[in-house]
Amino acid sequence: MPTTDRLRDGLAREIGAERILSGPSVERTYESDAYNVDRSQPTVVVLPESTDEVAKVVRWCRREGIPFTARGAGTGLSGGAMPALGGVVISTKKLNRILEIDLPNRRMRAQAGVTNIALSKAVAAHGLHFAPDPSSQTVATLGGNIAENSGGPHTLKYGVTAPHILGLTLIDAEGEILELERGFGPDWIGMVVGSEGTLGVVTEAWVRLTPVPEHVETALACFGTVREASECVSAIISRGVLPAALEMMDRNILMALRAAFGLEFPDATQAMLLVECDGPREACRQEIEAVEQAFRDFGAITQQRARDAAERAKLWTARKKGVGAMGRLAPSVVTHDGVIPRSKLPEMLDAVYEIAARYQIGVANLFHAGDGNLHPCFYFDDRDPRQVEAVVAAGTEVIQKCIELGGSVTGEHGIGVEKLDLMGLMFSPGDLAYQARLKEIFGTNELCNPCKVLPNQRGCQEHRLRWRGVAT
Amino acid sequence: MPTTDRLRDGLAREIGAERILSGPSVERTYESDAYNVDRSQPTVVVLPESTDEVAKVVRWCRREGIPFTARGAGTGLSGGAMPALGGVVISTKKLNRILEIDLPNRRMRAQAGVTNIALSKAVAAHGLHFAPDPSSQTVATLGGNIAENSGGPHTLKYGVTAPHILGLTLIDAEGEILELERGFGPDWIGMVVGSEGTLGVVTEAWVRLTPVPEHVETALACFGTVREASECVSAIISRGVLPAALEMMDRNILMALRAAFGLEFPDATQAMLLVECDGPREACRQEIEAVEQAFRDFGAITQQRARDAAERAKLWTARKKGVGAMGRLAPSVVTHDGVIPRSKLPEMLDAVYEIAARYQIGVANLFHAGDGNLHPCFYFDDRDPRQVEAVVAAGTEVIQKCIELGGSVTGEHGIGVEKLDLMGLMFSPGDLAYQARLKEIFGTNELCNPCKVLPNQRGCQEHRLRWRGVAT
Repeated sequence: MPTTDRLRDGLAREIGAERILSGPSVERTYESDAYNVDRSQPTVVVLPESTDEVAKVVRWCRREGIPFTARGAGTGLSGGAMPALGGVVISTKKLNRILEIDLPNRRMRAQAGVTNIALSKAVAAHGLHFAPDPSSQTVATLGGNIAENSGGPHTLKYGVTAPHILGLTLIDAEGEILELERGFGPDWIGMVVGSEGTLGVVTEAWVRLTPVPEHVETALACFGTVREASECVSAIISRGVLPAALEMMDRNILMALRAAFGLEFPDATQAMLLVECDGPREACRQEIEAVEQAFRDFGAITQQRARDAAERAKLWTARKKGVGAMGRLAPSVVTHDGVIPRSKLPEMLDAVYEIAARYQIGVANLFHAGDGNLHPCFYFDDRDPRQVEAVVAAGTEVIQKCIELGGSVTGEHGIGVEKLDLMGLMFSPGDLAYQARLKEIFGTNELCNPCKVLPNQRGCQEHRLRWRGVAT
Repeated sequence: MPTTDRLRDGLAREIGAERILSGPSVERTYESDAYNVDRSQPTVVVLPESTDEVAKVVRWCRREGIPFTARGAGTGLSGGAMPALGGVVISTKKLNRILEIDLPNRRMRAQAGVTNIALSKAVAAHGLHFAPDPSSQTVATLGGNIAENSGGPHTLKYGVTAPHILGLTLIDAEGEILELERGFGPDWIGMVVGSEGTLGVVTEAWVRLTPVPEHVETALACFGTVREASECVSAIISRGVLPAALEMMDRNILMALRAAFGLEFPDATQAMLLVECDGPREACRQEIEAVEQAFRDFGAITQQRARDAAERAKLWTARKKGVGAMGRLAPSVVTHDGVIPRSKLPEMLDAVYEIAARYQIGVANLFHAGDGNLHPCFYFDDRDPRQVEAVVAAGTEVIQKCIELGGSVTGEHGIGVEKLDLMGLMFSPGDLAYQARLKEIFGTNELCNPCKVLPNQRGCQEHRLRWRGVAT
């Protein structure tokens, strides 16, 4: 790897010295995203302000043979924005402008570094919003949402990020600027969304604007067993209700919330369901009543419905502050991510508790039950290598169980570096070869966000132990 | 090209002689799909009954260097199922079984040759249906819908075929059997749907089942000018109504319908709008009332609303029988397909009339106005080479105008051979090179539905005049 000075000087000639950060505090800040089990420091960080500047950086990196990795807010949960082989981190922090609001066609063009919440705020006065709502939405960026094809609590009804992206400006791995649109023929946008920054760097996007629903109803119920809560989830959907959100929290997360924020719930509670319906007023009321009937049918201990926006916000508190509350339990949290058929929820949760107990690590679950998208959160001390290894091994077992039950290796957090070794559980060597060929379309070099998504890339194996702080 | 006998014998060893058709009537039947301007005869037609048999045929073709082209019902409108370089047509006629109905997960697995309408009929008793509804749905097959990413009148609300496909079994161009699923990572299904059979042969699919709406309202209005009708279309949508269907028919198509089926409408009518809303009963009623208010605001001469299913079917008659009615006007019809922003409808229709008049060919328009998806239907005598050339040239001008107005070269009928020369209007050489690289992922040979979608493929240029019956 060339020296920091050589990178600083070379890039300064391309985009100006004031756009380049380096030094020990920069290296520490950008050595991982929110998945901090694996770390690798960048040589420099650049802060371009336009598509052209990003293209200049990518072309320079390609000429010089320097790896580059795009990064939004660094809220990713599988290491997608970690500079695995060092080199240049391309931060989208200054790509933070909304470029065009096209109300008649309900779409908006924005740079990749705009936060998810800012997209919705920009059009709130027109009764519109950007529907994907990852829990990190106050800081997570549009570019990160695109890279990870982010979901969120409202994915059940509104889908993940992909269907809300109408156009993309992509710098491919060769530094060419591509304008991708929805339309006939190959769905390039479907390919790029969710590719975790491995096909190039997205600098701008046209996003779909969705009307804010006329009416919203939110209800919450506590159950004495996980099984009752799980069966209630399936019943709600099989009775024909499609809630906007259908979330579950288990006892461990509720106990953490009680300790941290004084959340109240009956002592016998083993699981809490939070359900939100939206749509035209009358239809929405009918739906929430059907949900409440299901709560009763499956033996809810208590239930309540928000009477206004303030009460709704209060009901959401438990869900939104859940991961934060775990900060009280241990220095570090790894939020895992797997998918199973909804009907397998009770069996899967039993397996999660058994696995965590066997590895002697703490676990709590808060997740998108309606989607069958599980988020076991392991809490542990990341300064203890034994605990780190236990978390990784337990995570692998959880995913193996998801696959065994007919599910998937990830729902919405991506592969990154975290799940490289798990790809083989789900894909044959032939499938993986297809994915590798797809990547080659966008440029034949191995510099664009290397070592992510596809296992066994050249030059990556020998770095894995180093990412985890084990000397090589 | 090898002799018919060599193909018959070779393929008979693979899948049995009873699966193979050949001879003059077979050659004539399979020389084109519903776009009959360009024709090319197959050497043989095979009728496989399973994924394995299709794979055997593809592998044999690849070994022997024989081109192969998949074909459903042959209702395609751009020549996608025409065997451009002869060889083997793989008919999906006997791939006609529904394999699995999974009601809890609202999905169904079916072979590619099942008709669109049969999918919906299979689950009608459960209140479900397959939402894409191309006008040819009584005969068009699932495989054809997937190849062309078919739309239909209800695309405005429910989308084209792609979002309704959850899984695919694809024989790639090398004869490998791939099982593609929705999930994380590259969206292979989004790539294959709409690729017009150029990436391989789809033999089975998991399709999404959509609940039949609780309530449907259908209304129709006649307008004295195309401009008033067009502005009414934009107003309906900008007022926040999302109809399930929003169709327009112009005076020429109405006159054809009057002549053919005695359709009644006021003499001053220049355009008719057909609007359907669906959803929960009360919301649906509010929507149709908003539509009727828009009809009044934009000066509808007459309007009516269906009071029951029989009346609804009657209102749809004009739309559904439109192309059929044109059969009275001339021996042949070419239904063109382009997209424009909704706001450009009046200007675009003026251009269509002017172009048709200049080339002295008949034209009528019936189309998905809500999507801005235009279908100018040119009617002409395909036995007159001058008229054929005029239709092709006029079609090119129509598409050039669509692009000029900010639209697209096709909405839902695909490129096939019809629009090969028009790809360059919309895509740069760099874009087209990307598409060619994508195709190579699925197999490096040039045998899989050759000469389609991408212009200037090897061995195709010299055949173009021959397809059109011009001696070479």
